[in-house]
Amino acid sequence: MRRRYVFLTSNGHKFREAEELFIEEGLALEWRRGSYPEIQGDTLEEVAMAAAKALEEGVFIEDSGLFIDALKGFPGVYSSYILKTIGNEGILRLMEGVEDRGARFESVVAYRGRDEVKIFKGVVRGNISPSIRGSAGFGYDPIFIPEGHARTFAEDYAIKKKISHRVKSIKMLIRYLKEM
Amino acid sequence: MRRRYVFLTSNGHKFREAEELFIEEGLALEWRRGSYPEIQGDTLEEVAMAAAKALEEGVFIEDSGLFIDALKGFPGVYSSYILKTIGNEGILRLMEGVEDRGARFESVVAYRGRDEVKIFKGVVRGNISPSIRGSAGFGYDPIFIPEGHARTFAEDYAIKKKISHRVKSIKMLIRYLKEM
Repeated sequence: MRRRYVFLTSNGHKFREAEELFIEEGLALEWRRGSYPEIQGDTLEEVAMAAAKALEEGVFIEDSGLFIDALKGFPGVYSSYILKTIGNEGILRLMEGVEDRGARFESVVAYRGRDEVKIFKGVVRGNISPSIRGSAGFGYDPIFIPEGHARTFAEDYAIKKKISHRVKSIKMLIRYLKEM
Repeated sequence: MRRRYVFLTSNGHKFREAEELFIEEGLALEWRRGSYPEIQGDTLEEVAMAAAKALEEGVFIEDSGLFIDALKGFPGVYSSYILKTIGNEGILRLMEGVEDRGARFESVVAYRGRDEVKIFKGVVRGNISPSIRGSAGFGYDPIFIPEGHARTFAEDYAIKKKISHRVKSIKMLIRYLKEM
């Protein structure tokens, strides 16, 4: 232990969210700004596992997605492409008049250890809000209301920092690293 | 020449469309029913090129997509996933009240030759129809009206068989094979 870990991501928001959790636990985290080749897979696990095999030891990646029940899991594994094209506005259009608002955020961390890739998965259930609300966070945060709460992740960033899918997966990774 | 060519696809519609064109030219086409690993790429060419490298000589694949101008190219490279989740109904919802209906269908064939992969690309421009129309064809055919026409590909399958993106790319492949 007491070594340096590297988060490979092009997303500064994700890096800062992870770095904060590492620092809380007395660990340093390095940001390797960049992207990596991804396959088209059915699950985040499959995509992350395939990508992490090519990394060096000590490097990890994180892939996340919003899975909406009424839309058969859309935008799912392709959440970032779909955010860049139709955006939160598009998602809300697709959900107009739809009664079942249930959704989940998934975050999968794939850490390249010495001999294997370790996968850590965090999930948070919630509902799609009727409108875009709040300006904290990024991505689909302004339309996701976590279960048991009334405001979106973008309105209540303090809650996001406690219970989000990514906080869960990164914390699992940190626990693993500390126990190693 | 006079050898057998193999189309690797899980889609029977695509195979039959291609087979017809091969037969017209006196060539036999074999159907290898199956899928292949795909990367997440920015273009169909990139995805098809990467996949075709792993094929044996004489085998080809075809990847196609619908690119809608007003939706920044959505559903694009992820057309099949998006069709399976939100479907044509979802696309029409996203296009409600949108004035610019312009779109294009792209088809990319990647043929594994002896030493290289050859790429053939067919494109057809058109417009997104205001409703789902017709029952021929498959995929996004019921919402795509080719330029210069009044009916969707699914309403006028004879037109599709003449001018579609896939007819164009497959014909380019056949021309190449016959000249080889």
